[in-house]
Amino acid sequence: MPKQRQLPEIQSSKISARSRFFAIEKLELRFSNGVEREYERMKGGGRGAVMIVPLLDPQTMILIREYACGTHTYELGFPKGLIDPGETPEQAANRELKEEIGYGAKQLIPLKSLAMAPGYFGATMHIFLAKDLYLEQLEGDEPEPLELVNWSVDDIEELMDQPDFNDARSVAAVLMAAKKIGG
Amino acid sequence: MPKQRQLPEIQSSKISARSRFFAIEKLELRFSNGVEREYERMKGGGRGAVMIVPLLDPQTMILIREYACGTHTYELGFPKGLIDPGETPEQAANRELKEEIGYGAKQLIPLKSLAMAPGYFGATMHIFLAKDLYLEQLEGDEPEPLELVNWSVDDIEELMDQPDFNDARSVAAVLMAAKKIGG
Repeated sequence: MPKQRQLPEIQSSKISARSRFFAIEKLELRFSNGVEREYERMKGGGRGAVMIVPLLDPQTMILIREYACGTHTYELGFPKGLIDPGETPEQAANRELKEEIGYGAKQLIPLKSLAMAPGYFGATMHIFLAKDLYLEQLEGDEPEPLELVNWSVDDIEELMDQPDFNDARSVAAVLMAAKKIGG
Repeated sequence: MPKQRQLPEIQSSKISARSRFFAIEKLELRFSNGVEREYERMKGGGRGAVMIVPLLDPQTMILIREYACGTHTYELGFPKGLIDPGETPEQAANRELKEEIGYGAKQLIPLKSLAMAPGYFGATMHIFLAKDLYLEQLEGDEPEPLELVNWSVDDIEELMDQPDFNDARSVAAVLMAAKKIGG
């Protein structure tokens, strides 16, 4: 099967709206079949983000419960954050762990790099499994302390059924981690 | 453990930027500990979206390869789309299947409803496993024909390793479907 189709040609692009944290880019595209269409996408920082499944011991994951503005709810999920300038994804993962759960990790095993919604965003999130944790707290920029939640790797089915465990990236991360831990 | 924390108070909200397809809302929040902070989130249509893992037969999933503007790449993933006004998620799923792969489904099994990135978006995506397919094509609004890709349920590891299979929602969907099919 043909894996490489000819990408549409970007005929013009401009920032069509901008707020404090976001910018929206308008693109005029011409597809290889001649069809022209207008698209919009979010411009991100471009450095990407990380999410980490931390294993406190071989049986126990650490999750956090955190306020999510998009849904105006508290959501259960894994530690995550943006990569800072000059950081590798691994360095960002270790820093976020220290800020959000008070541990560093001696082992960070890459699981996969994910796109959030590639139709609209260019951003990539690198997912790691973290093992061999050691106590180290760094100060984060959260407005309130995060709630830490320990969860047994044997109870992933129950986690999947939690009404506040919804983030597609956390769901993908725990299922990928389960395969890695099991295998 | 306390599952219900007191939600931050929304002290003000306004649309801070708007483009053709997007609107960005600025919120001033006061957390229960007194900390005040400004947040931004994307306003969506609010009706949500669907994604479907279609089983052509017990061994074969149907994927699509489609242009993704956010990453300016062709991406492999599952049929998906917005819920139209008046549709149930199941009706939207069946319509999207007919538009994108040329089949309807007699069975739509809900797997889970996911948030894309609850920190920034309120939108929910309902994930279904579709079985007992029948031929029926509806015209969609794609700028070019979608490439259909059959994939064996025995080769999910290989799918996970494909460089164009990145969408967090497709990754979550295939791993949830695999558990359902296997179980």
